[in-house]
Amino acid sequence: MIKLHCFGESGNAYKAALTLALTESEWTPVFVDFFNGATRSPEFRDLNIMGEVPVMEDGDLVLTQSGVIQDYISSKTGSLGGKSAAERREVLRWMFFDNHKVSGVAGALRFQMNFLPEDKRNADVIAFMSARLHGALKIMETHLADNYWLASEVVTIADIACAGYLFYPEEFTFERAAYPNIDRWLDQIAALPHFALPYDLMPGSPADRAQSEESHD
Amino acid sequence: MIKLHCFGESGNAYKAALTLALTESEWTPVFVDFFNGATRSPEFRDLNIMGEVPVMEDGDLVLTQSGVIQDYISSKTGSLGGKSAAERREVLRWMFFDNHKVSGVAGALRFQMNFLPEDKRNADVIAFMSARLHGALKIMETHLADNYWLASEVVTIADIACAGYLFYPEEFTFERAAYPNIDRWLDQIAALPHFALPYDLMPGSPADRAQSEESHD
Repeated sequence: MIKLHCFGESGNAYKAALTLALTESEWTPVFVDFFNGATRSPEFRDLNIMGEVPVMEDGDLVLTQSGVIQDYISSKTGSLGGKSAAERREVLRWMFFDNHKVSGVAGALRFQMNFLPEDKRNADVIAFMSARLHGALKIMETHLADNYWLASEVVTIADIACAGYLFYPEEFTFERAAYPNIDRWLDQIAALPHFALPYDLMPGSPADRAQSEESHD
Repeated sequence: MIKLHCFGESGNAYKAALTLALTESEWTPVFVDFFNGATRSPEFRDLNIMGEVPVMEDGDLVLTQSGVIQDYISSKTGSLGGKSAAERREVLRWMFFDNHKVSGVAGALRFQMNFLPEDKRNADVIAFMSARLHGALKIMETHLADNYWLASEVVTIADIACAGYLFYPEEFTFERAAYPNIDRWLDQIAALPHFALPYDLMPGSPADRAQSEESHD
């Protein structure tokens, strides 16, 4: 049984979790209490020196970085991957694009706008990150005008990577209505068998934390 | 003969160019006049919808994203790659880390601090990006305390990826003296046969632009 160290708010963990779900892998989530500092603990750093979720354990094998986990699960299950060397390169291309320009920006932006205390949020940083994110989304929007999926005739882990953060409900300046091709493509992903939204797939959510704070009052 | 569309200031292009140089590939740079808008032209967008350098052409094959180009060159030449499935995953892991946390941040930070007009630079954005970059550098510093190279017993494209931006002379809040293990590791890379610094390997540099502006006065 594969273990995925994760928490609901992490879009990077969601990319791994959704890949496990869509491939019908046997897996179980292990909750990482990020908001109480769990990823900064020595125990967690021993598991992943990068101090990040997701971390996947499959027997003795420990993998980190969502893209590596996605690639491993895709190879292991023979699904959601490229069917030729050229397609595998195209899949990897969009996964790097995601890490650099989509998730790498959307994650920090969403954190600023939702999970930082209000007095620590910075309007200039938010504007800067938002402009960067929309630059990347425009590229995806243009590409999806002529392509049903990002990297192949069929859905691949590249779609799951680039879409991950876009399924979250919190405000981070992304509105599906502004990007009709992205909107259509997200609907395609959401229609896949075994699809689930982040807070339905992984433990931990803003609602859980609100409830927990209330019970401590 | 491989063509690499690039310009000297691009650390992402440098990662591809240095991989070509270290593997003794036959290649030639094609200058992209980024600072005069070349990557926004329809011709360039036809070549790469992502609007970025590097773009590599090897005969009819066109590849973009530095990580994909590095992986292709490594496979083609049988060098600088992982020697087993586990090592290949470890290489890919550090390449994703680089795209997300090192290059993805250092590139934007260095652009803000050096290539934007002074009245468009934002101190809050610079402080935010700098804090993010140093978080990633600390992880590399810790890892390199116990490891001679990042992902293997020998140098791989993961080292080239994570080091790319760190070889640039412009100020972006990174000082080698503050990171002794990174400093040692950069020296190891610089000592490799056929190593060259960015402005010696690719056309275009701040010095070239200053000279060009002077000749237009």
